[in-house]
Amino acid sequence: MERIVQCVPNFSEGRDAGKIEKIVECFRGVDGVKLLDYSRDEDHNRCVVTTVGEPEALRNAVINAVGKATELIDMTKHEGQHPRMGATDVIPFIPIKGVTMEECVELANTTAEEIFNRYKVPSFLYEKAATATHRQNLAKVRKGQFEGMPEKIKDAEWAPDFGTEVHKTAGIIGVGARMPLVAFNVILDTANLEMANKIAKNVRHLSGGLRYCKAIGIDMEDRGVTQVSMNMTDFTKTPLYRAFELIKIEAKRFGVNVIGSEVIGLLPMEAMISTAEYYLGVEDFSMNQILERRIME
Amino acid sequence: MERIVQCVPNFSEGRDAGKIEKIVECFRGVDGVKLLDYSRDEDHNRCVVTTVGEPEALRNAVINAVGKATELIDMTKHEGQHPRMGATDVIPFIPIKGVTMEECVELANTTAEEIFNRYKVPSFLYEKAATATHRQNLAKVRKGQFEGMPEKIKDAEWAPDFGTEVHKTAGIIGVGARMPLVAFNVILDTANLEMANKIAKNVRHLSGGLRYCKAIGIDMEDRGVTQVSMNMTDFTKTPLYRAFELIKIEAKRFGVNVIGSEVIGLLPMEAMISTAEYYLGVEDFSMNQILERRIME
Repeated sequence: MERIVQCVPNFSEGRDAGKIEKIVECFRGVDGVKLLDYSRDEDHNRCVVTTVGEPEALRNAVINAVGKATELIDMTKHEGQHPRMGATDVIPFIPIKGVTMEECVELANTTAEEIFNRYKVPSFLYEKAATATHRQNLAKVRKGQFEGMPEKIKDAEWAPDFGTEVHKTAGIIGVGARMPLVAFNVILDTANLEMANKIAKNVRHLSGGLRYCKAIGIDMEDRGVTQVSMNMTDFTKTPLYRAFELIKIEAKRFGVNVIGSEVIGLLPMEAMISTAEYYLGVEDFSMNQILERRIME
Repeated sequence: MERIVQCVPNFSEGRDAGKIEKIVECFRGVDGVKLLDYSRDEDHNRCVVTTVGEPEALRNAVINAVGKATELIDMTKHEGQHPRMGATDVIPFIPIKGVTMEECVELANTTAEEIFNRYKVPSFLYEKAATATHRQNLAKVRKGQFEGMPEKIKDAEWAPDFGTEVHKTAGIIGVGARMPLVAFNVILDTANLEMANKIAKNVRHLSGGLRYCKAIGIDMEDRGVTQVSMNMTDFTKTPLYRAFELIKIEAKRFGVNVIGSEVIGLLPMEAMISTAEYYLGVEDFSMNQILERRIME
């Protein structure tokens, strides 16, 4: 695969394994598409699928999966802890290799359009694909959830980007484009959650810290320590080492030390490689020097 | 490709581009084989091919290329600065993914055997594939070069592993198995080559340093500084960060500082990722968390 896009569609079904299999099946054995992972949560009543592929092939697979979800999931009967607005709840496209963010935005547009044409399920475009600033943030887009959508979209500010009415059983979908998220947690040698939260506050974008970093303090009760739990929303601009070193600096004022870190789930190799590059002070390094990158070309 | 072996065959032709193309052609458009790079050096009169593939497919391509080299290169007329003993001079197999060193040793054996059966060109097995300790080091195996081989192999200590006579025009081949080499140079803020050499001596295996590290001091005249130029011969056991940090410590005694580093050529992503893991103190990290690794599976 010369050009690789990742897509992590979320479907509002976490309990009926049979239905989930039928949806996931749309990503299996498809030329140019690879199913990397899928996991369901019964409490959230939600299933998260991680898949990669060539842009065209991936779009087709996603559209087919949306068809299955529309057929199988009835949102009028859906209950779960996770906020949701549709049978297919969100479809983020993520550039991985040989693909620009602009192309992912285009992919979000053509996907949402074809979904509406085929199934009459409407969409909001969100994050980098959003058509207005107030529609970038997914939490704001989804606010009101499935039940509140018919009312919400009456407001011109919240007219869907594709379609004009909420689908009766499948609701409405958020189709977006974004950078890969890296879940990166830095562990502190204190059990004091208040300190962890203060450090988190100092490094996160929201309160004066790093541009592409979301952070909160979290208790690690079993170990008697805490951590700064982060979502790195664009590691190409705010690399992991910068958050790590800044946490060390901020922790110092409390006499707190960093004792380790965790990376949760998948991440692109570049997130780790750019960090090694920093610490070794490598001059003129290129990702083309990575053997596996060349093999994948 | 689920299982990936790298092979870097060296051929004794660096001047006749037509001949080189015919040899390299054996790696093009072959299912399960990928030609990553090839470069020729006129002074060395030598061509280095970098290729990866599934073990069986790669072996067949290599054997075909040896056939071409045997047909096209006449060692009785070969001149060049680089030591060499055959038209195909060396064939190292390198485990990259899903393949053990033992399998690469086996691959070296079956490749050398088939080369002899088809073309009557003999081989020495070297490095991890060597059949005796004194035959591990390639420089020692190659000593005497093409011209000296008929005499050298009369000694039972240097009988070829396959074949009994040197091929009249194609000489003899070194077929081996080894770990990927990483060429890693650490730059010092001194112009004093003697200091660079002393530091190199302290970190390299030969003189009491790190097990899988070869090092020499090198002048970077244009910048007025020097470097410790290293070959990391097994980064899975002696990682880059360890050499880097040890150089900093050794440099300190001379009041010398490390100002950067260089990675020359290709390297497996794991060499960089294990270094990031160290500096971030990542707990329980697995290479399966790397998206690209999953894509390649």
